[in-house]
Amino acid sequence: MKMQGFTLADAVMERSPGQAADIFAGDLVGGTDGAPITIGYGRWGPHTTLSETMAVDDVMVVLEGGLTVSSDDLEVSAGPGDIVHMPKGAVVTIVAGAAGAVTAYVTYPDWRAARG
Amino acid sequence: MKMQGFTLADAVMERSPGQAADIFAGDLVGGTDGAPITIGYGRWGPHTTLSETMAVDDVMVVLEGGLTVSSDDLEVSAGPGDIVHMPKGAVVTIVAGAAGAVTAYVTYPDWRAARG
Repeated sequence: MKMQGFTLADAVMERSPGQAADIFAGDLVGGTDGAPITIGYGRWGPHTTLSETMAVDDVMVVLEGGLTVSSDDLEVSAGPGDIVHMPKGAVVTIVAGAAGAVTAYVTYPDWRAARG
Repeated sequence: MKMQGFTLADAVMERSPGQAADIFAGDLVGGTDGAPITIGYGRWGPHTTLSETMAVDDVMVVLEGGLTVSSDDLEVSAGPGDIVHMPKGAVVTIVAGAAGAVTAYVTYPDWRAARG
């Protein structure tokens, strides 16, 4: 593989699987490219919520807006520049703030393959 | 492992190994934590330069400032919100802009272990 650069406009946003809210994911690099990781951008509508048992390690970097992630007895509020690590196996609930959120994500391994 | 949230102030910045410029990396999560990836923040002084053959897949998300990454015949300029993927084996030269840069990074696998 070669070095690549991406900007938000490069991502083709698709509704995140298994939910009907305004939560979108746009993969830029994934397993089908021969990469061990998935890279993409996420867009979260205001007050959208996603609950999930993590099939992969997922790192979210908040670029705009904000969201709150809860897991076990911990709750993390993340704004621009903050990072949330959701390890494989963690049971998380993500709630976007009033302004929604734009995130960058990196997962290991490829998250679509892990969902089967 | 449990879900964790981080902000730039959480990172203990250390000079990036093997170079004397004002380029700093602060790991937040790594192999010693049992994670398959490394997560951290980077800080690049104005006009600093780093040339490297990638020992791991490295994803940089630019949070502040900007930098230019060159590899093979490609040059990418990245500003806030942009993502640069430097796959394992790529030979890259990174040059920070006049304002320097703050980045978030995710590597697979753990970059310190891969350096040996």
